[in-house]
Amino acid sequence: MFQSQLFAKIKKEPPREAETISHKLLTRADFIEQIASGIYVFLPLGLRVQNKIARIIREEMEGIKAQEMAMPALQPKSLWEKTGRWQTMDPPLFKLKDRHQKELALGSTHEEVVTYVVSRRIKTFKDLPLALFQIQNKFRNEIRATGGLLRTREFLMKDLYSFHEDQKDFEKYYEFIKKVYQKIFKRCGLPTLIVQASGSDFTEEYTHEFQVLTGAGEDTIIFCPRGHFAQNKEIAKAGTKCPVCGQTLKSDRGVEVANIFPLGDKYSKDLDAYFVDADGKKKPIIMGCYGIGLDRALATIVEIHHDKDGIIWPKEVAPFQVHLIKIENSRRVKETAAKLYYDLQKSGVEVLYDDRTNKTAGEKFVEADLIGLPLRLVVSEKTLKTNSVEAKKRNEKKIKLVKLSRIVKYVQ
Amino acid sequence: MFQSQLFAKIKKEPPREAETISHKLLTRADFIEQIASGIYVFLPLGLRVQNKIARIIREEMEGIKAQEMAMPALQPKSLWEKTGRWQTMDPPLFKLKDRHQKELALGSTHEEVVTYVVSRRIKTFKDLPLALFQIQNKFRNEIRATGGLLRTREFLMKDLYSFHEDQKDFEKYYEFIKKVYQKIFKRCGLPTLIVQASGSDFTEEYTHEFQVLTGAGEDTIIFCPRGHFAQNKEIAKAGTKCPVCGQTLKSDRGVEVANIFPLGDKYSKDLDAYFVDADGKKKPIIMGCYGIGLDRALATIVEIHHDKDGIIWPKEVAPFQVHLIKIENSRRVKETAAKLYYDLQKSGVEVLYDDRTNKTAGEKFVEADLIGLPLRLVVSEKTLKTNSVEAKKRNEKKIKLVKLSRIVKYVQ
Repeated sequence: MFQSQLFAKIKKEPPREAETISHKLLTRADFIEQIASGIYVFLPLGLRVQNKIARIIREEMEGIKAQEMAMPALQPKSLWEKTGRWQTMDPPLFKLKDRHQKELALGSTHEEVVTYVVSRRIKTFKDLPLALFQIQNKFRNEIRATGGLLRTREFLMKDLYSFHEDQKDFEKYYEFIKKVYQKIFKRCGLPTLIVQASGSDFTEEYTHEFQVLTGAGEDTIIFCPRGHFAQNKEIAKAGTKCPVCGQTLKSDRGVEVANIFPLGDKYSKDLDAYFVDADGKKKPIIMGCYGIGLDRALATIVEIHHDKDGIIWPKEVAPFQVHLIKIENSRRVKETAAKLYYDLQKSGVEVLYDDRTNKTAGEKFVEADLIGLPLRLVVSEKTLKTNSVEAKKRNEKKIKLVKLSRIVKYVQ
Repeated sequence: MFQSQLFAKIKKEPPREAETISHKLLTRADFIEQIASGIYVFLPLGLRVQNKIARIIREEMEGIKAQEMAMPALQPKSLWEKTGRWQTMDPPLFKLKDRHQKELALGSTHEEVVTYVVSRRIKTFKDLPLALFQIQNKFRNEIRATGGLLRTREFLMKDLYSFHEDQKDFEKYYEFIKKVYQKIFKRCGLPTLIVQASGSDFTEEYTHEFQVLTGAGEDTIIFCPRGHFAQNKEIAKAGTKCPVCGQTLKSDRGVEVANIFPLGDKYSKDLDAYFVDADGKKKPIIMGCYGIGLDRALATIVEIHHDKDGIIWPKEVAPFQVHLIKIENSRRVKETAAKLYYDLQKSGVEVLYDDRTNKTAGEKFVEADLIGLPLRLVVSEKTLKTNSVEAKKRNEKKIKLVKLSRIVKYVQ
């Protein structure tokens, strides 16, 4: 992409209301723009990162043979009444009426819809287990939406639902998904802690949250420094020591980027999702639910990966891998940079090419640091004197000269 | 994909309320399910087709350097009041209130948001022209949502917006987009007629619709049999002959799969989107808007491409390219089919592999015809006698035996 054509306007100052680093940097670098409290536009740079996270999730879901579908945001009241959540989920459910005065909800989650859809297709144990997911916009009627993408009213979420014959099969899958989610977050550059959290209304078990420890988080996490134990403070008993090793627990703020729930047979019973087992007996399907907030993950990546100059994108989620900058407008610099741009693109590298002629070298470097692509390449008269390109990783100080003849290979 | 694992339940009968062929076939083949009037779930097969259409659109948009972004469904009343459409678009605007009793709209279109976003980034003529698009769910508070995916209350749409210095530059682009859209629909297997339709409230010009002629359509199209002229009946004068060649006009039903609008300076003026031209003069940006209904296009493909046995997907939008069917469960048939499945997948062909053991050959063929993949391959004891696979195109009657050693090449 030619930066002269990129729809993005770098800002020197963050918006007044921005409190978190991620909100400040993502706005200044023009990845996102708020149009109302907790409601955001994803500009081209922001959308590219969102797509990268979605791609990682899809690859990992494909790897475990979960099937993707797409459920609607609009959901009829009748389904929510069957589970009692028309009342108990208000807040945070957005409700509205159609032209016939029928009430609808904007989905903040999809247990009702997915269980209804499954109930009409699963008949016997041979149809189980089953795993379905979607990546889709969710809505929450929050009273206070702050922190940029950390708490919003409309947000992209991946929700996975699993369906099992019995509790044992479910539990195996639940533990399996913990590992898959850790892999997803590792690829996103997020170190996560799996944390016990409060059970849902209808199970006695804990649920689990994937927390990223950072001061920007709204949650408080109590954890064993030796890694034996971690719990959301909301369920912690006062003065507790680690139940495994007796160490005094530490405490830190965390952002919840995912949560996973045992659902038991709550939704199956409410929505009539039964199957016939091997002995011919009719039983409710045992369910689990596993959510990842993509936008919150995106913001958390920035909370974790930045310095005073800007964002430092991990490679797999960077909007582009390379920021190619040309300095001076001599014919030789222009031609060399343009050729390098095409060669890199051709070899499968995503490049943002700063071809602008109305910016100084200094301005270009400042903007490049703010946007935060993993590798910066500079072509100038000076570098061309040795037939070289200057290469600098965003997360290192070291600058290296790489011969033009070797640069594509170096980048790969 | 192994069909034994595919989340899809073929139905012998369409739902009672289904009136159109596309609604009947897409439901019977389990591509979609309605959960409330005009609100649908896209099951794995349906989502795959939707993704194929989206991919075609993205490729063509990338080809013309339009930039993708993502705007929210929730939109503040304040933006809609600036253009007067909080009143004039009701219907079909869905409106709701948040917990502070602030009013929001669910976007049925995004002129307000995109113009606001552009107004904050475009300063001079050097920033123009600009083209932005998104593929995103839209909402319409329809009084009557019928015809399956042809008229729904929540639907996936691609909306492109263009921004220009002057009317002349806009007009050139408008004509250019006509050609791009024709290419998109051609790739989707849809023959479209570009039809004059009524002007919007704020321009005197016509807008244009891309209509597919089919009895399932809600519109009536008047057109010259020689191709000189086409108009939506809503603006046609009684008794008109072709204004170009004088021929008597014909009339047919049509489905509007896209519409394109000159927007003039209406939104720029209302939302303060001005730029400074080369002479230093401040001027409102001239805009155009170009929408494609992906779900409606999907249904229209089925209206156009089917026979009495089921859907006949055009290759580029088929959920899979090949339906591989194994008949009988001898070890040799099983091993050959499985190897063929992996070989085809490895060579980049998307295959739905009917590995099921509880269905007769007849049942498998009936379901395959209903689902409608472009190429059916059958492996049985009989075909293996000549080391062959039986190949049949969905849109031809002819059955051909192809040697196993040649089949991957044949499919490619």
